[in-house]
Amino acid sequence: MANKITELFGIRYPIIQAGMVWCSGWRLASAVANAGGLGIIGAGSMYPEVLRTHIKKCKDATHNAFAVNVPLLYPNIQEIMQIIVEEGVQIVFTSAGNPAIWTSTLKSQGITVVHVVANTKFALKAEAAGADAVVAEGFEAGGHNGREETTTMCLVPMVRNAVNIPVIAAGGIGSGGAILAAMALGADGVQVGSAFAVSEESSAHPRFKNKVLQAAEGDTKLSLKKLVPVRLLKNEFADAIAEAEAEGADAQTLEKILGRARAKMGMFEGDIEQGELEIGQISAMLKEIKPAGEILKNLWQEFLTEKERIAGMKF
Amino acid sequence: MANKITELFGIRYPIIQAGMVWCSGWRLASAVANAGGLGIIGAGSMYPEVLRTHIKKCKDATHNAFAVNVPLLYPNIQEIMQIIVEEGVQIVFTSAGNPAIWTSTLKSQGITVVHVVANTKFALKAEAAGADAVVAEGFEAGGHNGREETTTMCLVPMVRNAVNIPVIAAGGIGSGGAILAAMALGADGVQVGSAFAVSEESSAHPRFKNKVLQAAEGDTKLSLKKLVPVRLLKNEFADAIAEAEAEGADAQTLEKILGRARAKMGMFEGDIEQGELEIGQISAMLKEIKPAGEILKNLWQEFLTEKERIAGMKF
Repeated sequence: MANKITELFGIRYPIIQAGMVWCSGWRLASAVANAGGLGIIGAGSMYPEVLRTHIKKCKDATHNAFAVNVPLLYPNIQEIMQIIVEEGVQIVFTSAGNPAIWTSTLKSQGITVVHVVANTKFALKAEAAGADAVVAEGFEAGGHNGREETTTMCLVPMVRNAVNIPVIAAGGIGSGGAILAAMALGADGVQVGSAFAVSEESSAHPRFKNKVLQAAEGDTKLSLKKLVPVRLLKNEFADAIAEAEAEGADAQTLEKILGRARAKMGMFEGDIEQGELEIGQISAMLKEIKPAGEILKNLWQEFLTEKERIAGMKF
Repeated sequence: MANKITELFGIRYPIIQAGMVWCSGWRLASAVANAGGLGIIGAGSMYPEVLRTHIKKCKDATHNAFAVNVPLLYPNIQEIMQIIVEEGVQIVFTSAGNPAIWTSTLKSQGITVVHVVANTKFALKAEAAGADAVVAEGFEAGGHNGREETTTMCLVPMVRNAVNIPVIAAGGIGSGGAILAAMALGADGVQVGSAFAVSEESSAHPRFKNKVLQAAEGDTKLSLKKLVPVRLLKNEFADAIAEAEAEGADAQTLEKILGRARAKMGMFEGDIEQGELEIGQISAMLKEIKPAGEILKNLWQEFLTEKERIAGMKF
């Protein structure tokens, strides 16, 4: 094994399952870990003690490495980080915030730290803060996203040129060919969100998963750019936001339409019209609910097949 | 040579120079053709007799294959197609319109026809109309763009799965690694715009080229979505559009700000603040003005190097 990402995390395949609100609890993270990828518990939708329970259950369910993703704008951040250290979590992915604040604290506890970025500026900041790797997440990714709207195709080579630490590509990775493409762009590994959001072990509501499977090309849209940009699946709620945005609604008006707990309502409780449904553009290629381990193995098999095909091309 | 695109066009490298308004006249198209790629004359910014002159000069400047790109919404479309047939142009790329209207007419004249699409729906239409190949152009591409905002990373595999004719990837192709990535996603060739827009032989104004070279990440934006979406480089004009859009300006108001001949003003006449500057996201990676032939050779050399690197990866 000569890959920087498999070595960094001590995993078999350089495939990371994204930490996703309302989708990635201990069931999904441990399923991916047991299959040889890096599973991530998404702390963004968990109260601190709920996170502790998920970490404990994940440790019981797998002997392999797993990580916790922490959005740095989380209100209980101090408590969350305390729990992560107490529970002996070995790998932390931070996102949505300044990597300078927590990286050195976590590193001093022997924790491997990866920061999620949407531009080279923050990739450089993460490297300077001592991060072990960065996730370069493109415009096509689901959920919260960068203001520059730089796509995976453009972002990955730019981040690759900017930093010396390993780069993980995210956004639009839904096939083995896309994993190979990410590596051709300079990534050492990939982070896969949407495909695992609709896996059997995802804790998302079945109605959300089925809505995603029905999504066609163009059915997601980067929304709420005047607040924090987020890629949403079109539904009544997203249409209301789009209409307000087209009419020039300000941040306050958008916040009022958004209200509270929309993501939980949509993704966890299954209100697929009034809830906030976060998913990537690649959802248009997802056709069935499968076990996470099978998704991982299929991706890897496809990757190897594509690698052979490309290697065999004659010019 | 076992590549569908090199065989289709009778060229050496599966690299196509995009037909770009105000950039790609006979000088650029013939330079690319002479270097072994497919050069394209962009008819979108030419009066019919100007196009005829460019075709004639291109024929004098190269014995290799070249093409003409025709936006199907062009007002003088009948006259343009007449000139293309009269001048014996062998390859036509059509864009911005319904492929069903002109494909069979051109094909009956023995012309190879390629249609540019931003979604699978139009890729299927193009194939049904008899097109020989499609260009799948992602959200990150410069100039006019699709409403679905699907990125190259997501669009290419979807189009690849949908059609049987060869697929050319466009949007974000600025390095040999990106060419390899496009092929990993299922493309048979690539179309490169931005890199050739700032080549020595591009007919764009030097001030436009230099402005592009200074562009940083996030300096382009998909604008005018209420008219026809177009990716623009930020300047005073683009900022005025962005401000109006944020305030909810309707199509009529935007048309008034746009006025007439903005692209010519910016890209050809060099008014880099009040003109419309069309360029892709990958412009942030462009650092110098080089001859088109050198750009092409460098891309291909990088592609071969990356191909070797990927083939040598051990898992």
